[in-house]
Amino acid sequence: MKFNNSVYSLYLTQNSLVAAPVIYDRKIRESQERISAIVVNSGNANAATGEEGLKNAGEMAKTVAERFNISPSEVLVFSTGIIGVQLPMEKVKSGINKAIDKLTNWDLELSARAIMTTDSFPKYTEETVNIEGKKFFVKGIAKGAGMIHPSMATMLAYIFTDVKISKELLDKITKDVLERTFNSIDVDGCESTNDSVLFVATGESDIEITEENKDILFNSLYSVALKLAKMIVRDGEGATKLIEVEVKEAKTEEEAKKVGEIIALSNLFKTAMFGNDPNWGRILSAVGQLHLDIDFSKVKLFIGDFLIYDGKPIDFDKSKAEDYLKNNNEIKVKLVLNRGKFNWKYYTSDLTYKYIEINAEYTT
Amino acid sequence: MKFNNSVYSLYLTQNSLVAAPVIYDRKIRESQERISAIVVNSGNANAATGEEGLKNAGEMAKTVAERFNISPSEVLVFSTGIIGVQLPMEKVKSGINKAIDKLTNWDLELSARAIMTTDSFPKYTEETVNIEGKKFFVKGIAKGAGMIHPSMATMLAYIFTDVKISKELLDKITKDVLERTFNSIDVDGCESTNDSVLFVATGESDIEITEENKDILFNSLYSVALKLAKMIVRDGEGATKLIEVEVKEAKTEEEAKKVGEIIALSNLFKTAMFGNDPNWGRILSAVGQLHLDIDFSKVKLFIGDFLIYDGKPIDFDKSKAEDYLKNNNEIKVKLVLNRGKFNWKYYTSDLTYKYIEINAEYTT
Repeated sequence: MKFNNSVYSLYLTQNSLVAAPVIYDRKIRESQERISAIVVNSGNANAATGEEGLKNAGEMAKTVAERFNISPSEVLVFSTGIIGVQLPMEKVKSGINKAIDKLTNWDLELSARAIMTTDSFPKYTEETVNIEGKKFFVKGIAKGAGMIHPSMATMLAYIFTDVKISKELLDKITKDVLERTFNSIDVDGCESTNDSVLFVATGESDIEITEENKDILFNSLYSVALKLAKMIVRDGEGATKLIEVEVKEAKTEEEAKKVGEIIALSNLFKTAMFGNDPNWGRILSAVGQLHLDIDFSKVKLFIGDFLIYDGKPIDFDKSKAEDYLKNNNEIKVKLVLNRGKFNWKYYTSDLTYKYIEINAEYTT
Repeated sequence: MKFNNSVYSLYLTQNSLVAAPVIYDRKIRESQERISAIVVNSGNANAATGEEGLKNAGEMAKTVAERFNISPSEVLVFSTGIIGVQLPMEKVKSGINKAIDKLTNWDLELSARAIMTTDSFPKYTEETVNIEGKKFFVKGIAKGAGMIHPSMATMLAYIFTDVKISKELLDKITKDVLERTFNSIDVDGCESTNDSVLFVATGESDIEITEENKDILFNSLYSVALKLAKMIVRDGEGATKLIEVEVKEAKTEEEAKKVGEIIALSNLFKTAMFGNDPNWGRILSAVGQLHLDIDFSKVKLFIGDFLIYDGKPIDFDKSKAEDYLKNNNEIKVKLVLNRGKFNWKYYTSDLTYKYIEINAEYTT
């Protein structure tokens, strides 16, 4: 993808087994405040590939830069696919050149398709925002379906807007967006070596974002990022359900997120959701595992609109709650902690036979 | 079980959703240095049962104490089974009385059978240690097979020795034993509300354990506890393999344990083991998730005796490694970090279709 020389915010995996393009992009991020293009290859993650891998990431940037007559340091590089295998550079270079020949502006579907690995559908969305007679866009594409065969399927997401904004403010806004979207989803608790999320602001519209009107940008970036993040969960390995775990009235924002996360990561909760089982014991005992001083006699737990625990076990209409789980592929679980004013939403998938099949049967 | 008025070390779940007997036993532990009996019921966990549950735990202790003419404060109470349901106290009391009528000393198999819930076999073992013409015993029973239907299956373990020892020294030794055995096993990453491990030293033998000879006791307690812990993993929900994850040459003991744990907990690793896939990428990327400054170019990884990663991807005989995984139900994985002198072993099971079946199909 090619765009204006633009400010950007780049978030890379914190996994200490990092891929070559992640090491390469970290250096760009340290030294360059603006970029003009990104290049992504799919099928080979360029991970655990040592010095040669790093050189190849640089080659990819150089190939792109030459065609656009820009500096290689204006190009970010991303890879996804198999690990431990060197990139076939002749093929990669000719592929880059062919892609540039056909390049059209903002063809989201085509771009989203191009970066798929084991994804079952392309993931893209866009919004146009009108303010005071002017408008700006937010466009995003993503890939990811859990860390799958051969264990490095990776989440990649690229979100573009045409507002004018400073690098500092973009960083500040996108950090919050990231936390509440891509950093609040789980498929299998496994973090990839290549995970990357990029926000780019090209500055081509007439809208200038400042401290005063920054909520407008936050809201639209959040909306696009959340849609993409949910698509990734929905496409999770073997998933039959997208589950929203909403935590309300926590003491701190961090606590709200942690509570959501530990529920979302629990294999017992995820299998219960697959089995259409409104099992409050599995949810509360997962929360108990955080060793916080939560008073469970003040906690309320809902599945959909059904109150299933109210400070103690209660008689609820179990068959109705089961029907809700059976008949929906987007499930809401709400836990009210009743000890503060902070809320968080975490998104996860159910754990199914198909997950085992994908990860056990299709060996490397 | 009835024994001498004995020193003991008691370890209880840290899950903040605790069961009534856990709250009850915590109070005993605070005030009593010696106990004389334990009582365990299976089938009902007495968890999420409020004040009435706590009163019932006290009733169980009182029923035992009256029969043996001891104080209720000398009796520890344990429960395992379904949550959110009050104990049927008439049935419980008559059960306790019947059990006491038939009580024989140290019938490990019978005791182990009596505390089973969804366990598929009774878990018990014993050792006799000879030193300088004298001898002492270590006997242990346990139950647990993952946190299963209805989500509260609980690990319970009771280990007895007849050495003479101070409470302080017993606490010190058993804390280490616990860390390297019951605290180093995983079936599904889920901690129960009732988990309890008890060590009792009756002092009936002629052997006195002091700082000088404490290694003898450590070794035999470790051996018995490890055997029981491995039985629990082997009996894990749907497990077909017991997997030992050995971490060598870590910077600190804590690091070694954490690395072992994150591998043992990884769904991708556990499904790979089920699929007989010597997948080094899943193991290393799990370790990377700790965000430590590990240099993966110095790391070696073995499955069984097969070196499968040696600072970089290597050509190894994949079919032989696969055969090793296929033909053994006790698997060894060894990761050499090459950055220190600390080692740890963590034990886990594979993740299988049967796990999903047990946890999704058998709803509460």
